[in-house]
Amino acid sequence: MSRYWSDIVHRLTPYVPGEQPALAHPVKLNTNENPYPPSPAVLRAIRDELGEHAESLRRYPDPTARVLRETVAAHHGLNADQVFAGNGSDEVLATVFQALLKHDKPILFPDITYSFYPTYARLYDVEYRTIPLDDAFQIRIDDYMQHDGEANGGILFPNPNAPTGHALPLSDIERVVAANPESVVVVDEAYVDFGAQSAISLIGKYPNLLVVHTTSKSRSLAGMRVGFAFGDVELIDALNRVKDSFNSYPLDRLAQAAATAAYKDDAWFRECTERVIASRERLTSQLTALGFEVVPSSANFLFARHDGYDAATLAAQLREKEIFVRHFELPRIDQHLRISIGTDAECDTLVDALKDILGGYVG
Amino acid sequence: MSRYWSDIVHRLTPYVPGEQPALAHPVKLNTNENPYPPSPAVLRAIRDELGEHAESLRRYPDPTARVLRETVAAHHGLNADQVFAGNGSDEVLATVFQALLKHDKPILFPDITYSFYPTYARLYDVEYRTIPLDDAFQIRIDDYMQHDGEANGGILFPNPNAPTGHALPLSDIERVVAANPESVVVVDEAYVDFGAQSAISLIGKYPNLLVVHTTSKSRSLAGMRVGFAFGDVELIDALNRVKDSFNSYPLDRLAQAAATAAYKDDAWFRECTERVIASRERLTSQLTALGFEVVPSSANFLFARHDGYDAATLAAQLREKEIFVRHFELPRIDQHLRISIGTDAECDTLVDALKDILGGYVG
Repeated sequence: MSRYWSDIVHRLTPYVPGEQPALAHPVKLNTNENPYPPSPAVLRAIRDELGEHAESLRRYPDPTARVLRETVAAHHGLNADQVFAGNGSDEVLATVFQALLKHDKPILFPDITYSFYPTYARLYDVEYRTIPLDDAFQIRIDDYMQHDGEANGGILFPNPNAPTGHALPLSDIERVVAANPESVVVVDEAYVDFGAQSAISLIGKYPNLLVVHTTSKSRSLAGMRVGFAFGDVELIDALNRVKDSFNSYPLDRLAQAAATAAYKDDAWFRECTERVIASRERLTSQLTALGFEVVPSSANFLFARHDGYDAATLAAQLREKEIFVRHFELPRIDQHLRISIGTDAECDTLVDALKDILGGYVG
Repeated sequence: MSRYWSDIVHRLTPYVPGEQPALAHPVKLNTNENPYPPSPAVLRAIRDELGEHAESLRRYPDPTARVLRETVAAHHGLNADQVFAGNGSDEVLATVFQALLKHDKPILFPDITYSFYPTYARLYDVEYRTIPLDDAFQIRIDDYMQHDGEANGGILFPNPNAPTGHALPLSDIERVVAANPESVVVVDEAYVDFGAQSAISLIGKYPNLLVVHTTSKSRSLAGMRVGFAFGDVELIDALNRVKDSFNSYPLDRLAQAAATAAYKDDAWFRECTERVIASRERLTSQLTALGFEVVPSSANFLFARHDGYDAATLAAQLREKEIFVRHFELPRIDQHLRISIGTDAECDTLVDALKDILGGYVG
């Protein structure tokens, strides 16, 4: 606390990201990173940008990230002016809160969801109301249908949801978007490539739909910080106006080169996501056999609990074995663990450790 | 304009960065980039981070940029907790506006200065009052001394100032900081390495002093987007609280590696800045010989006017020759050009072009 701080600083509750352990070989299943490296084309693109003497780095990057946006637009069947690029989807989401979700009425998002949402809301003084997931940890579409004539300032949810992994079918998404023509509906598709249906196909039809993507998960580029929003040009224009009042150049030269290359290598992308999906199904069976209750996942993580074992204790015991999973000290989910899908070998290490901890219980 | 936009979006006047021409070999003297590439250590550090398969890019970067902050802190004789790192000094300045400059009273900055300041003020709804430079385009220190008991919500100016290049001595900076103990005084030292005195040495003495730096100019890393704020831990804490409510990972892995390496190669840094300073003095003489009036510069650019020629016309004529300088369509300075210091060869190309345009006038 300080007399020098702006008022808002006193009211913030900063987001706490998952731990980045400084160990040589942790089994790191706590931040939903991809177990596979980015496409070899990414390395080549970065080397090309660097050249012999990294000469280009003295120059500002393209403030509009034109080549990157055109590449990603083409990949998704959009125009470049329907694409906004930011410094990771976290920055994109923050810009969405500031540019499109601050109205007189509260925005709606699930009670159990990406825990950065309430943090953004406080940063930008956006009123919000959380809508409970049902007992199976699923979003109840009917709760977002603006029944009873109760208006909202916007709607936001991930699909698949985090940290549950549960996905809604596209028809449910469309019902929400169609039922709220006065509100922007933001679908945060950070994990969509691991088995859910993208709402991008609806963009031409609904001017109030915004879809957010990231390169951090399915493109293996968490280290490079590149995210996107897709939507009607009027929504993208609002995001650009805020961006250009904040930071003209959010994406550095190597990030633009890396992300562009990643989108051009579709075969690599498909192979890596398919391997993650296969490992997810395998790990789901293994955990179930150990007595865990696992929420059906369409993401690159599992959300699981064990009736006989306290989740925080389990996470701590795994941590002693240099295995990192995510535990949230939050209502309703403090007995769950969120476990990122690693390689099969990493998943096996986890399962072996759990067998040890669970005292020989093998289902 | 759209019903979906937050109110603030309608009121923004986005900053317009200098043009990034898509030409093979422009003489690009419009965005104050360094004419020399970054240290060879930067290239090595990026290659080391990439390794054989860019494997590390799948992992999130260190959200605290610890190694980078420790390196830069050591360079400046500070502790790491007195250093805030952001995605370019533009992002750092935006965060400063939000975290430290939004109070009940207006902040003060010069009428002629970095034109992003009023843009930030509008984005965060920060009231401001501009203080005129004197007729020699110099900041009048007495105007910031809180005489007449008139309080302010903060004070902000670049030193050297942009786009004038004029620098204040450290004693003047200290007078402003000491005279405003209730306000944060932000000294934006983007260009300080080209001949001005840094206020970093005053940080231990004044809890209200914040100094902002960038790697875009003297470290030749405009393409990588890394900037800093230095100050008392209480000020840095406010910036981190906002940052962690906005984007946990603003600096990607390669940006952190590049900037760390740049700060470790002090010899390269000194040699490049000395060469730029020598070229600046040379270009100042050349332009003066052509009849230009040049503001004495401590930066890597010159601010110059010619009584016989309209500045916008000159800029357009240079542009036809693929030589880019910056012209601001703003009160008091619409007859000036801001010219970045290039290599001597680039400066000679500019001078030759001006001789052509000025019709054989050779002083």
